[in-house]
Amino acid sequence: MDKFYIDQLTVIGVGLIGGSIAARLKREGAVGRVVGVGRGLKNLTYAHHHGLIDEVAMDIQHGIESASVVVVAVPVKQVETILKEIKLSPNAEFVITDVGSTKGDFRKLVERIMPERAGFVVPGHPIAGSEQIGPQAADPNLFEAKNVVLCPLDRTTDTAIDLVQRLWQACGASVSKMSESKHDKIFSAVSHLPHVVSYALVEMMNRRDDAEELFDFAAGGFRDFSRIAGSSPEMWVDICRANRSPILHDVESFILSLEKIRELLQSEDYEAVQRIFDAAAVARNNWASNQ
Amino acid sequence: MDKFYIDQLTVIGVGLIGGSIAARLKREGAVGRVVGVGRGLKNLTYAHHHGLIDEVAMDIQHGIESASVVVVAVPVKQVETILKEIKLSPNAEFVITDVGSTKGDFRKLVERIMPERAGFVVPGHPIAGSEQIGPQAADPNLFEAKNVVLCPLDRTTDTAIDLVQRLWQACGASVSKMSESKHDKIFSAVSHLPHVVSYALVEMMNRRDDAEELFDFAAGGFRDFSRIAGSSPEMWVDICRANRSPILHDVESFILSLEKIRELLQSEDYEAVQRIFDAAAVARNNWASNQ
Repeated sequence: MDKFYIDQLTVIGVGLIGGSIAARLKREGAVGRVVGVGRGLKNLTYAHHHGLIDEVAMDIQHGIESASVVVVAVPVKQVETILKEIKLSPNAEFVITDVGSTKGDFRKLVERIMPERAGFVVPGHPIAGSEQIGPQAADPNLFEAKNVVLCPLDRTTDTAIDLVQRLWQACGASVSKMSESKHDKIFSAVSHLPHVVSYALVEMMNRRDDAEELFDFAAGGFRDFSRIAGSSPEMWVDICRANRSPILHDVESFILSLEKIRELLQSEDYEAVQRIFDAAAVARNNWASNQ
Repeated sequence: MDKFYIDQLTVIGVGLIGGSIAARLKREGAVGRVVGVGRGLKNLTYAHHHGLIDEVAMDIQHGIESASVVVVAVPVKQVETILKEIKLSPNAEFVITDVGSTKGDFRKLVERIMPERAGFVVPGHPIAGSEQIGPQAADPNLFEAKNVVLCPLDRTTDTAIDLVQRLWQACGASVSKMSESKHDKIFSAVSHLPHVVSYALVEMMNRRDDAEELFDFAAGGFRDFSRIAGSSPEMWVDICRANRSPILHDVESFILSLEKIRELLQSEDYEAVQRIFDAAAVARNNWASNQ
């Protein structure tokens, strides 16, 4: 296989993810030129100054006019506006990919806004991140040995899929492909539901009369369990909106699971409680030992 | 205040907690002699060989006959048997403390088994631990700057309370006192409920048809959230049994919290969802910055 190489990568939204892709592809010599576009001049200037990108474009049209690949790496909420702008470009040849954590909503936007470009659109989701944000946290090794899921549209061409797959492989990632509905179900369960549950638990503690004492005595187990409740509420409300139906389904299933445990405690059926805890501990420890 | 010093500490159950107390008090020169008692000869031999304890006693009666303080550091389930044995000692002078994570059940056992010794019993709960177990993991610094909660009985003497408080301070811990019912409510919320929830969530994932894929794509958020689901199921079933009523109450409250979020997602009231997430994120980040 030839070494992956593209003439111009345009990153719209040079934050943690966009900046890390840019930094890695430049380090790999996999790109002729990286152009950054964004709303925040401060982040762009930082990224340019630190060599994450080669050029800052004044606006999206200038940024993408000579692009080979356009990476949309903005918060979910801004995607619609960005796609409407991209649609207007006279350049009809670039491949478009994104990095959002929900994929059904992205597909719908593409089909509504730019069906004529669907062959060149490869929705993607890198399973990597950090608690830090912005280009200051960009790291060329962020995606090393991490999973990236691609959810091609019905009309996405094999050529476009192959290009984006090789882009991510050049970033050190392992690429999987699946439908966007399967993707959204999986990530509802392994990521979105845990966030909702963690927020709900901390908020419930915080509402109690003895909240101050609770936090005084919270220790290690609480620290790990609640870490994701420190995540950006805006981002997670957007994810709830974008992936509402699978998340609703999982919240409902989880309420049933807790109801079951409640009944078992009520009836003091500790053997059945133990079977649930055992199954979880085995599954969790198997998972951890395979990481 | 005079330096804390006792002639003989007897540790029943020389595991992580018991071994760490022994190691610390010996390092502090706060104890004349540490005697270890336990069911597992392997752990006792290890502890003796590595200087955590000075002597291994053949059985509880030999171990406690000259004790100044007896620390009961065995799994919750064995406490009853141990207390019945301690009761029989002709030595009526030693102070007894324990390290269990639930305190209402311990109080009931003491009142039932050895009401005549209640003046010398100081129930305790060090809020410290490790994922590792056994004397191999013992660490004289385990309790440094950690909280220890004492829940004296109505009849516990001030002298006994003072002695155990100074013992824990010599271990580097910060000591609080509260009723056992308050203790059990607090720890139900900050520790027991999160464990139940984490077990329930991992077990639910594991039951799904797509479990294998879920675990394949689970990442950082899941890692932290589910860590406590890898804890000993036996120990946590015992805690559910010992602290059943507060845990049941908290599971029920938490189901209501999730029902609320379910309704808000159903009606697409994302502003209200955001208020919940905001409150949690602020509380969690405040907590973390005070640690």
